[in-house]
Amino acid sequence: MLELKINEFYFGYYGMIADKLKEINAAPGDYISIKNGNKQFNGTLMPKNEFSKEDIIVLKLDNGYNIGVKINEKSEIQLLKKGQLTTHAGEPVKLVEKEITPPENKRILVLGTGGTIASRVDYETGAVKPYLDPNELVAAVPEVLNYTNIEAEEILSIFSEDMNPKYWDLITYNIFKKFNDYDGLIIAHGTDTMAYTASAVAFVFNKGLKGPIVFTGSQRSSDRPSSDSAFNIISSAIVASKAPFGEVCVVMHGETSDSYALAHRATKVRKMHTSRRDAFQSINDIPLAKIYPFEGKLEIINKSYKEKKDINPEFGFDDRVALIKYYPGMSNDIIDFLVDNKYHGIVIEGTGFGHISNRLIDSLERAYESEIPVVITSQTLFGRVNLNVYSTGRKMLQAGVIPGEDMLPETAYVKLSWVLSRTRNMNEIKNYMLTNLAGEINLRHELRLYPRWYHG
Amino acid sequence: MLELKINEFYFGYYGMIADKLKEINAAPGDYISIKNGNKQFNGTLMPKNEFSKEDIIVLKLDNGYNIGVKINEKSEIQLLKKGQLTTHAGEPVKLVEKEITPPENKRILVLGTGGTIASRVDYETGAVKPYLDPNELVAAVPEVLNYTNIEAEEILSIFSEDMNPKYWDLITYNIFKKFNDYDGLIIAHGTDTMAYTASAVAFVFNKGLKGPIVFTGSQRSSDRPSSDSAFNIISSAIVASKAPFGEVCVVMHGETSDSYALAHRATKVRKMHTSRRDAFQSINDIPLAKIYPFEGKLEIINKSYKEKKDINPEFGFDDRVALIKYYPGMSNDIIDFLVDNKYHGIVIEGTGFGHISNRLIDSLERAYESEIPVVITSQTLFGRVNLNVYSTGRKMLQAGVIPGEDMLPETAYVKLSWVLSRTRNMNEIKNYMLTNLAGEINLRHELRLYPRWYHG
Repeated sequence: MLELKINEFYFGYYGMIADKLKEINAAPGDYISIKNGNKQFNGTLMPKNEFSKEDIIVLKLDNGYNIGVKINEKSEIQLLKKGQLTTHAGEPVKLVEKEITPPENKRILVLGTGGTIASRVDYETGAVKPYLDPNELVAAVPEVLNYTNIEAEEILSIFSEDMNPKYWDLITYNIFKKFNDYDGLIIAHGTDTMAYTASAVAFVFNKGLKGPIVFTGSQRSSDRPSSDSAFNIISSAIVASKAPFGEVCVVMHGETSDSYALAHRATKVRKMHTSRRDAFQSINDIPLAKIYPFEGKLEIINKSYKEKKDINPEFGFDDRVALIKYYPGMSNDIIDFLVDNKYHGIVIEGTGFGHISNRLIDSLERAYESEIPVVITSQTLFGRVNLNVYSTGRKMLQAGVIPGEDMLPETAYVKLSWVLSRTRNMNEIKNYMLTNLAGEINLRHELRLYPRWYHG
Repeated sequence: MLELKINEFYFGYYGMIADKLKEINAAPGDYISIKNGNKQFNGTLMPKNEFSKEDIIVLKLDNGYNIGVKINEKSEIQLLKKGQLTTHAGEPVKLVEKEITPPENKRILVLGTGGTIASRVDYETGAVKPYLDPNELVAAVPEVLNYTNIEAEEILSIFSEDMNPKYWDLITYNIFKKFNDYDGLIIAHGTDTMAYTASAVAFVFNKGLKGPIVFTGSQRSSDRPSSDSAFNIISSAIVASKAPFGEVCVVMHGETSDSYALAHRATKVRKMHTSRRDAFQSINDIPLAKIYPFEGKLEIINKSYKEKKDINPEFGFDDRVALIKYYPGMSNDIIDFLVDNKYHGIVIEGTGFGHISNRLIDSLERAYESEIPVVITSQTLFGRVNLNVYSTGRKMLQAGVIPGEDMLPETAYVKLSWVLSRTRNMNEIKNYMLTNLAGEINLRHELRLYPRWYHG
């Protein structure tokens, strides 16, 4: 017999609808009627597999089509005839209900910072604006309460494109102040700069975290039907309450469908698409865990995670760091400008193994003489910087640059900002940058870390 | 019967070795002896499937192991016994030889510019340095001569990280001057900035090309055993001689193994890995063609290519364009510096849909008032800029920025440099940037364009 696995709620139904169905003892396969005012629908009750906060019951009509019927408090549902679900071929389908195993008394705090996950359309301009009362957010996604005791608090209300190192300070102070009373934290954050902020938090708490800190957000406004908010918030609640690690991660859709979410290590994740729900992907590392929110399941896929430890923060960021990109024809003036204007550090996205034009090496030397560290990363994103292969790279090393290993340019920028608030000594900076502190350097690259492109 | 497909040379053997084997009428399965001076090897002749420029014959020894025996002019090969290749299970193997269909009298010109494909180790420092006589290059890879009549010429001898818009001029002038006498061109180029140069050439010849212009290079030095030079050069020769399009493309390994190469549209390709052989991948578009060099086969996978036409160049690049990347905490000073220093145009890699901080919008307005066009792309690389969704984007549009559609930041930089040498009129610049000229804007994104990451 075909077994259809459904989630641990009432055949996929939640709250008021589940109550109404239980009251009349209706299960999928039964023939029921739904009355909404003077409209009536008769059909076979179907299990609801697709996760949705919409209040609908799925009916298979006599003509074979499935429809979703909107249910409100006044809807009347009647059981007309008990029945049995079958496949198209007429084979009976057995519904296997999963056990509910909520983590006991896990306490989660959601800190709101702004962004699409808590946004609504501004009906005046048609644009999306943030709304930021996290209590409203939790109220909009009551399913998370099945897993955990969640409280919510707003600490910031900005678009993520306006995020900056001062706000990183504010966020990390709040985490330190509040984590004590909770088992895990969720930071609701706009997706644009979420990876930067998540890695900032990862460096501050690289010496110890008592549980997971989960950054999450939404690629679609939560009042749109295709919103990914609920899926991501529930997946985040699972990670915050169940994950065995004391790490900072980003939890977002793993695929474009509602199949699973991924928990990416904060220092290795990057937003790789402007709009897809699975825009966040790990670069040069395997994600930490895969989450199946319908089953409440968390699967660790990267075992080299940090264990939970006492919280041990190292606060502070330097906001005089620049991230620039090398391009053919770039002249010396931009680097010279940064040196002249007493920037404290520079991260360069070089080409290939980390090269920039030989013409610019003078400017690198000037930076070094002015005690401004220059960290080299690669605009290829994948792979590892290596300045020993070609003569240009060797000249760059002689000019004192720090090769950024396999760090993402964005992570190297955040790390240098954090390092510069600890020390301005050039040797110490170099040691910090070359030491893996928060998973930002992965010494072992497997072939499968490189994604597979469509090749016809 | 198992059929083993082998390439169109003599069971995988070329040149002198093929001649020696034909002379004694030896075919795979036959038992032969090879004498090198006073060393003798007896074994079963095996077909040579792996492409290699090394002069070896593969023998299966009596103990079952395969070895490669190096052959030189003086090696003596004798047929000891005719035989039949079998599988491990003893099943006979039939060797199916492919027909040779060399394109008739196709003339290809290789223009050398430098880079790893023509590099050798500097034994003094251990670093790799370019050597740039393309005749030497062709001599090192004689197999290309089986497909085409190839001539070679050196027009530049630089590392690709030293490439700049002045050299783009030099390369495009050379192409125009020389293409007339050839059916296709191959530009040997260092991989670091190859995509930038290829798209520069694509914009200059966007109105017409009489045949393919193929950029190729190597991720490994050609004197290392794992070099990809030969595979890439042969694949490029196939594209240059057989491809039906009049487009500029980049031809490099499609996978890390020697299975197939890909021809990527110049304006949609990006180096995505520091060291892998399949580092070049198409972003937001399907590659133009797949090439199987061992079979001499080219398969078009993207039918929306430009047909061959009379060559019609529009030369020139403006070298006062900057490409900068937005990051959280970026201050106004970098954009202000570019405006104050009379840069002619700026391309910004924004976050997500193309956002930058609201604090920087004043600087965008200053740029617009100074008639400096600002083009917005996204650091996510995949997807399309959309400044209409959120209020920050709408303010940026009001400040006069040009949304870069789904263009790669690097392509937008090259295009703006090319456009600014045509016009300085702000409206004309905008029209140019929003019009698809060389495949740089793809209006139709299929889901499969996004690569598949490893998710455990």
